This record gives sequence, C-alpha cells and structure tokens, in this order.
Amino acid sequence: MKEMEISFSEMARRARQTEIIKILARSSKIPDFISFAIGIPAPETVPVETLKKIADEILEREGLRALQYSDTKGNIQKTLVDFLSKDNIRTQEDEIVVTTGAIQGTFLATLALCDPEDIIVSEFPVYPINLQTFRMHVRKIIPVSMDEEGMIVDELVEKVNSLDKKPKFIYTIPDFQNPSGITMSLERRKKLVEFALEKGIFILEDTPYRYMRYEGERLPSLKELGGDIVIHVNSFSKTISTGLRVGYVVAPRELAEKMVSIKQGADFSTPLLNQLMISYFLEKGLWEEQMERIRKIHTSRLRAVLKALKEHFPEEVTWTEPKGGTFIWVTLPGGTDIRALLDKALENKVGFVPSSDFYLPEIERDYPPAMRLNFPYYGEEKIDEGIKRLAKALRETLG
Amino acid sequence: MKEMEISFSEMARRARQTEIIKILARSSKIPDFISFAIGIPAPETVPVETLKKIADEILEREGLRALQYSDTKGNIQKTLVDFLSKDNIRTQEDEIVVTTGAIQGTFLATLALCDPEDIIVSEFPVYPINLQTFRMHVRKIIPVSMDEEGMIVDELVEKVNSLDKKPKFIYTIPDFQNPSGITMSLERRKKLVEFALEKGIFILEDTPYRYMRYEGERLPSLKELGGDIVIHVNSFSKTISTGLRVGYVVAPRELAEKMVSIKQGADFSTPLLNQLMISYFLEKGLWEEQMERIRKIHTSRLRAVLKALKEHFPEEVTWTEPKGGTFIWVTLPGGTDIRALLDKALENKVGFVPSSDFYLPEIERDYPPAMRLNFPYYGEEKIDEGIKRLAKALRETLG
Repeated sequence: MKEMEISFSEMARRARQTEIIKILARSSKIPDFISFAIGIPAPETVPVETLKKIADEILEREGLRALQYSDTKGNIQKTLVDFLSKDNIRTQEDEIVVTTGAIQGTFLATLALCDPEDIIVSEFPVYPINLQTFRMHVRKIIPVSMDEEGMIVDELVEKVNSLDKKPKFIYTIPDFQNPSGITMSLERRKKLVEFALEKGIFILEDTPYRYMRYEGERLPSLKELGGDIVIHVNSFSKTISTGLRVGYVVAPRELAEKMVSIKQGADFSTPLLNQLMISYFLEKGLWEEQMERIRKIHTSRLRAVLKALKEHFPEEVTWTEPKGGTFIWVTLPGGTDIRALLDKALENKVGFVPSSDFYLPEIERDYPPAMRLNFPYYGEEKIDEGIKRLAKALRETLG
Repeated sequence: MKEMEISFSEMARRARQTEIIKILARSSKIPDFISFAIGIPAPETVPVETLKKIADEILEREGLRALQYSDTKGNIQKTLVDFLSKDNIRTQEDEIVVTTGAIQGTFLATLALCDPEDIIVSEFPVYPINLQTFRMHVRKIIPVSMDEEGMIVDELVEKVNSLDKKPKFIYTIPDFQNPSGITMSLERRKKLVEFALEKGIFILEDTPYRYMRYEGERLPSLKELGGDIVIHVNSFSKTISTGLRVGYVVAPRELAEKMVSIKQGADFSTPLLNQLMISYFLEKGLWEEQMERIRKIHTSRLRAVLKALKEHFPEEVTWTEPKGGTFIWVTLPGGTDIRALLDKALENKVGFVPSSDFYLPEIERDYPPAMRLNFPYYGEEKIDEGIKRLAKALRETLG
C-alpha cells in the first residue's frame, strides 16, 4: 500500500509533536549529555520504595478489584474531595473526573467545548503539549502576553472585547507557569476571574505545579475565586510520579458528565491500580512529607542554577526567579538565533527547549528569544557544568 | 453560574454513554443481582498473584524508570513484535503504538482519519463504545448486517459501491465478535481484504478476543491477509487484566506516527508500570498457560449457559454458539419489547445488555430484538439461576 496516500482528518493534519520529543531523540545517543529539556522533578523525590509497598498492599488487599475496570469517571473521588478541601476548593464527587494525567483533562475539556471555528485564548509563552491540543481543535488562538505578575489581564480584556465571537475558554497555568516559572499575582487572579464571570467565559486553570512551592504563601486558586466559571485541572505527575498518569478535572457537573461520555470512548478509564496507588498515598497522610522532600531538594537545585547563571552567563541575559515548580525562563538578547543556539548546545552536550516551541509560529517573532530550563533533575555539580556548557554555546552563537 | 448554558462542541453533542453504564448503575444497589451485562472474563482467570509478583519485581529492579514518563509511542514494542510474529503478523517497532486499552486504539485511528462529513462502515450489531466514538466523529455510519459467517461482504460491496464518497474505514471484530460471538469465516476474510485492497479503504480490525479460542483452529487475522490496508487493534484487557489498560495498534508507519502526535495531547503516554507488567508477563513465557486457564474455565461456563438456555428458554428463542470470547447473542421473537424485558429482568435481579445498545437508533427496528449475555463471570450454579430468572422475565414480558 506504499502508493496509497493516507487522507488524514483536519484535526490530524494540524496535530504536531512538540520539539521536546525531537530534542530528546537527538540527544539520547550523546554520552555524558546534560539535559535541561524534559520537565521532570528531581528523581530523588519519586517515592519508589513507598509506592512499591503501596502497590503490594493494594494487590494483597484488593488485587482483583484493582486489576479490573474502573468506573469511567474514576473511583477515588472521595479522597480527592477531601484533598481539594484542604486547598479551599469545595466540590462534590460528581464534579470530578479522574483523568490519565492532567494532559487528558485539558484534552477532554477542549474536545467537549471546541469546534474548529471556535476561539481559545491563552497566555504566551505556553505549555507546548496543550498548545498542540488547542491547535488541533481550533483554527484561532488569541495570544496574551505575560509579565512578572502573570498573564496581562488588561491585554486579555482588550483583545477579547474586540472579538466578534466569545472565546470558549481562557487557558492559564497560574502557579509556577510552564515554561516561564511565573506565578500570577493575587490582583491579576481577581481581575481575571471578575472578567470571566462578567463575560461568561470559562477559565481553564492548569495547576500541575501548584503544590510545589518552595517559599512564600500559597495564593488562592482561580477555582476558589471563580467557582463554576473555572475548569480546574491538576495531576499527581509532578508531585508523586509522572509515569502513573493520574490526574483530575474539577468542572461544573454538566461539563464533567460530558467529559465522562467522551472519556468512555477515549480510553474507557484511568487504570484503577494507578488511581488506588495515589489514593492510598494520600490516605496514609504521606502528602505533606512528600511536598517537604520536594521543597528541600528543589530549593537547593534552584539556588545552584541561579548561582551558575549569574556566574557564567553574559550580563545582557536575564532570567526568572521562580518560587516553585521546575522551570526557569532565560531571555536572550534580541536577535539571538535560538535554533542555531540549540544546535551549538547539543554539540556542547547540553539541552534546553527553545522558545519557538512555546509560541505559535506566526507570533514567535513578536517575543524575545528564550530558553526553558528544567532545573531540578541534576545535583549541584552537574547543574554548574551544564550551565557552563550552555554559556559556551551561547558565546559561540553570539560570536 | 447555574444560569450559563454550556455551549458544547458538535462532537460532544453527539457523544453519548452506552446503556451498559446505566444498567450497571441501576443494578448496583440490588442485592443478590446476577449480571450478564458487563463484558469481563471469569474473575478466576485474572492472574492476581502473578501480577503482584511482577509489579514487585519491576519496582525492585527498575522502579524509578517504571514510575517516570514512557515514550508517547510506548516502550514495549520489541516484546510486541515478537508476540505478533507468533500470530504471523510481521511488523516493525515503528508501526506499533502502545495504547491505553484497545478502546484508545480505535479512538486515535478514528480521530486521525475522520472529519464529520466522512463515512465509516461497520458491521451490526456492533460494540457500543466504539459505535459512540464513530458517532462522535462522523455523521454517517453505513451498517452492514452479519450472518453466521460474520459480516456479509456482498452487502458491504453493494453499499460501498453505491456511495458517492469513499468511506474512511470498515470496522469489524472478526474473532468472537462483541456482541454476537460470531467469528468471520476464512472465505469472508479473504473477500473483505480483497475488496478493501481493490478500493483502497482501510479495514479497522478490532481483536480483543482473538486469542480466547476454546475450540477449533485460529483463522488468519485480516492484518496477516491484508498487510498495510488493515489497522490492527488489540489489548491485553480480556486476556490478562481489564484494569491495566494496555493495548496496541499496528498501522502503516505514517498513520502510526500521526496517532503518536495525537496521543501526546490525549494522555501523553500509557503508564509505563502497566506496560512493563504486560511485557514481563509475556517475556516470562506465561502467555500460553494463561490462555489455557481461560480456555478451561470459560469452556465449562459456556456449556453451562448453553445448557441453561436450552432448558429454560422458550423454543422460539435462538442463540449463537461461540467458540471463544465472552459473549452469546440471544435473538428473541420479533415484536418483543426489549426495553420492557430489561425492566422485568432487573425486577427479577438479573441483567443483560439490550440489542438497542448495539444499533444506531435509526436502524434498530430493521433487526430482531436480542440480548447480549456475557457468559464467563459466574460459576455454573449462578449461571443456571441467572438464566432461569431471565426466562421468567421473558415469560412475564411476552405475557
């Protein structure tokens, strides 16, 4: 059938892989490579031993159940209602859908709400995997810039008011944003929710890093401030295990039900063993301790990266100083060829994700070139060595 | 936000849950209920102890890896290439996508290929979860009837030839079909593949029961006969564990790649721990033994159901006698009110899935009323009791 050309759907024709996967493929064969590319926590924070004991306990106590179908909506809602109440999110079991990672939460919400001619509003730079989901579902994405307080809500208001059609939702990661590391200020949160309520536009609040705060006080979630106008997506990927793929969405009941109908056909259910591993972990009261372990290890690595950047990078380069999460955003002098820099970096055995991956191609030039660095993966020495290599690649590129 | 009406996408508006979920919900509070409704194997065949040991071994040997991200395409392709070769399916690693159950395989293929104005051809009665996926993606589904040899290919040829547009694919479960239990004959398989190749139309071959044969010789898969014209979907749900949600698709490279791009946004990857549990199981050579265990238990339960049907059901009722899988299709006298029968059955503490769930609403009346019975779940005594209750409900309905 080599001669038969496959006729893909419009959605499939717009589906693209992120650069991250290509960078991983290009770098996987380079020995002694230091990667700041993939977004994962310090390996030391994954509670392997604890999860091993928990898996054992589940399979001993309720193995047959754990190895059979879950309800499509999930089976750990009770635990999640309690968990969310500690973050002042008052919800009910039928407003929660357990998903195969936070990524599936955004996917199901987008599929439930958006036809191709619909509009999505998103902060930029933006998490590339969800950007690809949005591009797959709609033809028009309205970009809103960010500053050190997060999404610039005045710009949002102006742009939305000038549209001749109401957008389906406004996408944001308010806490320790991927890729910028920026946290939306309280004032902006209030302003954003007020505008969304006034216009009747959903906010899709993506919060995978929310509980990974290393200093300061937690700010109220948009869900707490906005209630049913907010679709709240989260996962235990960054806080417990990326590989278990357990996340959840809190949404108005009618939307939650629709997402369950779609999920039935999408993967029927999130594996029950994986759901139970998370709920046992929470019910055993191991959460606080786990967040503390992450805070300790990530704080020292964050300091190490910031120190290394200051030592090795030229003065005209700037970067964010996040108070949580796993990302730093390094802004480069205007005109830096970010793709050439990536090539040089790979030659120097170091990796990052270039800003091009976080923008729509048509708006990339409106923003300064930058690098996303995932900081928690390596110990202090490797971090210093990696940043040195990056600085060398940058000098070689700038000439 | 109670006053805000949610504006769903066209796809979401067409998304519906199957009756199965509603039947489960209605019956879950009835004590001493006997359900032939949900499609699961005998609980005794789930290798709980073995999977417990395997999980333990994985988490001991490569726990950190197992709890971190998998590649989006999956990480057990090598094992699957070997596994498939034993069924005469010659394939390569980059033609395989590991999916979160077979359900996700069909979902990704449909999403990759179909716009709303496209056409899908399917045998009827058909597996309701995939029927809902098809309805969500396309406005036109062409039904093809089945007889004891499977999909009636002559009817298919006639219908496809009369269309003014080429369908995107032809959907079939050739082995021990859900819901009918029927297996497509070799002659039909050859005819179907020949037609698909001639027209350049994909066949989506869904094969979750393929290796659950209790008598006779395995027939060649459509994939073996048709190569790249066939998209081959399978899973280990029915054979090892429904809850682990590990399946796979074998597809032409270009389509496999597109499915990986979409899966990236849909759930990023199938949980690696779950994938490894399946691949360890296969690599330890436990497969044959597992199939033999299923064959033994299911055979005696199949006999028990057939015996009970003969003893308790009126003469005008007929049923299929499957040689594998988990379903029997019981055809009732024309005019039997299948929904009234379901109500009566629930009153009599017994459940089944009514034929209405396996047809499009607009074609339901063209087919005789029927029940799908999942036969392997209970031991012989309960089976007899359940069929007695069903017969009573039927007498009460027929009056």
